Amino acid sequence: MDCVDLNSDLGESFGRYTLGLDEQVIPLVSSVNVACGMHAGDPIVMRNTVQRAAAAGTSIGAHPGYPDLQGFGRRDMKLSPDEGYAYVLYQVGAMQAFCRAVGVELAHVKPHGQLYNRCAVDRPFADAVAQAIYDADPQLVVVGLANGQLIEAARTLGMQTAQEFFTDRNYTDEGVLVPRTQENAMIVDEAFAVERVVRVVRDGTIESVNGKTITVQADTICVHGDNAHALQFVQRVREALEIAGIDVRSPGRR
Amino acid sequence: MDCVDLNSDLGESFGRYTLGLDEQVIPLVSSVNVACGMHAGDPIVMRNTVQRAAAAGTSIGAHPGYPDLQGFGRRDMKLSPDEGYAYVLYQVGAMQAFCRAVGVELAHVKPHGQLYNRCAVDRPFADAVAQAIYDADPQLVVVGLANGQLIEAARTLGMQTAQEFFTDRNYTDEGVLVPRTQENAMIVDEAFAVERVVRVVRDGTIESVNGKTITVQADTICVHGDNAHALQFVQRVREALEIAGIDVRSPGRR
Amino acid sequence: MDCVDLNSDLGESFGRYTLGLDEQVIPLVSSVNVACGMHAGDPIVMRNTVQRAAAAGTSIGAHPGYPDLQGFGRRDMKLSPDEGYAYVLYQVGAMQAFCRAVGVELAHVKPHGQLYNRCAVDRPFADAVAQAIYDADPQLVVVGLANGQLIEAARTLGMQTAQEFFTDRNYTDEGVLVPRTQENAMIVDEAFAVERVVRVVRDGTIESVNGKTITVQADTICVHGDNAHALQFVQRVREALEIAGIDVRSPGRR
Amino acid sequence: MDCVDLNSDLGESFGRYTLGLDEQVIPLVSSVNVACGMHAGDPIVMRNTVQRAAAAGTSIGAHPGYPDLQGFGRRDMKLSPDEGYAYVLYQVGAMQAFCRAVGVELAHVKPHGQLYNRCAVDRPFADAVAQAIYDADPQLVVVGLANGQLIEAARTLGMQTAQEFFTDRNYTDEGVLVPRTQENAMIVDEAFAVERVVRVVRDGTIESVNGKTITVQADTICVHGDNAHALQFVQRVREALEIAGIDVRSPGRR
Repeated sequence: MDCVDLNSDLGESFGRYTLGLDEQVIPLVSSVNVACGMHAGDPIVMRNTVQRAAAAGTSIGAHPGYPDLQGFGRRDMKLSPDEGYAYVLYQVGAMQAFCRAVGVELAHVKPHGQLYNRCAVDRPFADAVAQAIYDADPQLVVVGLANGQLIEAARTLGMQTAQEFFTDRNYTDEGVLVPRTQENAMIVDEAFAVERVVRVVRDGTIESVNGKTITVQADTICVHGDNAHALQFVQRVREALEIAGIDVRSPGRR
Repeated sequence: MDCVDLNSDLGESFGRYTLGLDEQVIPLVSSVNVACGMHAGDPIVMRNTVQRAAAAGTSIGAHPGYPDLQGFGRRDMKLSPDEGYAYVLYQVGAMQAFCRAVGVELAHVKPHGQLYNRCAVDRPFADAVAQAIYDADPQLVVVGLANGQLIEAARTLGMQTAQEFFTDRNYTDEGVLVPRTQENAMIVDEAFAVERVVRVVRDGTIESVNGKTITVQADTICVHGDNAHALQFVQRVREALEIAGIDVRSPGRR
Repeated sequence: MDCVDLNSDLGESFGRYTLGLDEQVIPLVSSVNVACGMHAGDPIVMRNTVQRAAAAGTSIGAHPGYPDLQGFGRRDMKLSPDEGYAYVLYQVGAMQAFCRAVGVELAHVKPHGQLYNRCAVDRPFADAVAQAIYDADPQLVVVGLANGQLIEAARTLGMQTAQEFFTDRNYTDEGVLVPRTQENAMIVDEAFAVERVVRVVRDGTIESVNGKTITVQADTICVHGDNAHALQFVQRVREALEIAGIDVRSPGRR
Repeated sequence: MDCVDLNSDLGESFGRYTLGLDEQVIPLVSSVNVACGMHAGDPIVMRNTVQRAAAAGTSIGAHPGYPDLQGFGRRDMKLSPDEGYAYVLYQVGAMQAFCRAVGVELAHVKPHGQLYNRCAVDRPFADAVAQAIYDADPQLVVVGLANGQLIEAARTLGMQTAQEFFTDRNYTDEGVLVPRTQENAMIVDEAFAVERVVRVVRDGTIESVNGKTITVQADTICVHGDNAHALQFVQRVREALEIAGIDVRSPGRR
């Protein structure tokens, strides 16, 4: 039977600041990516988030980011590969401890924001990040942009990978994301987006922004839990997958 | 044969800022306590320090502190036990990952500064910190002030402990440290300090600040590597221990 | 004619994190206390908040706090008076620049959270904080807990002060706040709270928690803009003051 | 009579971490650039540094940097012009307050590290930074790389500028710095460096790395106070300037 993972970024609150409807989104997804205290999250939030996800039986991943809380890890920083290695190993290690404390194993790692983007295109940097994940635990599943450099880097190390597909983004003929700076970067037609998800999981193809049929591997699909509307969309995706006979489950261990 | 551990706090540099003669002190001690990025240290420094200590075969411990880089973890912060638990688990987890990356296991945990002081006197807080260390790894050795609450808390959890003795501090008749605010808090006579170390390891007794013989358990002795003079003192302590036939070795696994 | 200031703490958002209904509360109050980037706020938020308040003609104050974003300035930190001085001068200076940039002058300073609480009871610390405000600009109005040490410290320096009254807190027979740890610390009856505000401004008296009539100076009243309900309460207070013929205006320059 | 400013970056210590021989370098220079707490420095260090410089009669400038203590402001961060404006205004405002507290006026602003480099080449960003300095105080002298975009931006606003010359760097035929990545970027022959300083101040020319005579405006010369050798070099520069009859003084008010 076909299957796919639904993942969501959460644990992004910090101290007095609350972000995201974590409690509501956890039951709707098969895996969560938990912020590790550099671009978002803090040790108290990490503990609570991991407890909640573990109680729900959801697969838990680390979501490391750049050390820039004020920029939420979305401002590019010119870090060296050595710095990338050290920041990722630090964050993954911290998250592993919170998982062990509740008797589960960290299952995967998905970089956040500009760290994600840079890992997709910069091979030496992606190699350093993949090595950090490997050094934390070679059994971790590495999640990255489909066809991106992080996936290649992880495969070279013999690691399990999960290629991520975006429901709300258009793709070029070459199978990469249309940049946000272009007008047609985003998909706003939700019915179309839902149909496309089912198709990409079942057939491994979508239509590019130019109408060309292209091949995309979609092991995991990123969904959002920021607001009530986002949660509704996740529910629609789940229902469409169920009707299509596609199982929703995480790629890594639980 | 009698034995004792010599431990030193290091890995306290941060970014452009250098602190401590880490390379010189590592060969002189049997265990190191490495800062974890909250009160001092950063992921790059942690990586380098752990590599260096592992290469020298020195036992590696985590040295977690309060989240206050500007105050170097020495300013008291009114954290709840839950916050203490989360901050310690976070830091210990990060350090475990750096150890695993070089093929060694983290051996012990010794809190830093005001976290150390609070754990010595506040049992509910010490319980939370001990639980965090236990949750990271029940085999970790818990290092704390001799006769302090952290030692008690760790024993209650069935953990291995190491009671720490200070070479440069006077003790009261009750076996606790003379507060720094008092005139005779510090021992300045180094020859006397060295003799006292040998005695406390061999006999388990010292003379209190009032000249009374008191019992003190000294599993591990804290030495400093801040400057050339401090290194000389460590050398003198080592020589005196050797002459007395006392082995210098870490309490935990290596 | 009687008059009183209505003040509200705002500008507490940080980076990606939003807090408070600043736009809605600004038109309802006569002065705002803007966070300065240590316990909350950041330079971009400060700029936007000051622009918005200046455009509304609301009097602008600095709201400095402890350097602890994760604890939102609410965790006690054992800072020395010298540290208190330097942290407050730093934050007030930064806020003055954002005011000058839009052509207004910073009008007052009200410490936040634990900094506020400590200034109310610790005279040497309050002296250092008052001196910092004086050194930034001797014309600044110092806002503090009615009858607290900061008010005394500011008067000793010859500065203008504004004593703050809390609408939702009970007072002891001695005119200080009933601690939050006691059951009857908070006032939940809003109608009663509104009547009490009018009375304290007009007569300078309230009934203590034990029913005794006590004297309280209320130059400024703290109101909240966290949610729709809080905004409604501010509206009720304004209407009651208007009916009583009490003018709402800030104590300092505009 | 010819004159030139000698400037040095200081106040770069942070909490427990000490950097630079500030006390020794202050008497040797005519102006200092004091770190403002983002890339280096903290409020206590700022207070002490400003007091020391004011006592010595040295002209005081702000040395704002990127918000990245761990990278010491030397890692590029993709900040928007609006962010650049807000970070600079914040830091300059804080420093102005420390100056006012000791009865002097802040005289100039010189960006640090990557903020300096970006201001030299990115005009929209330089415009935002110049505007922030102007908004803090239009009388401030703007210090930047000779022929860089910050100098142009400040002139467009009608501000006073000081073009900075580097004693230890080679220049291209076009009058810009030879990048550090090239072999001959640095000048190691100190006697030659000293002669060149005298020439550039007196004649406004130097020889480029290719031996071509080029025109460079040198209003201020950056010297270092990191170690004893650096201090000796400053002393040599001062003596050479004195022999050549060149006065050492700051461009702005004192």
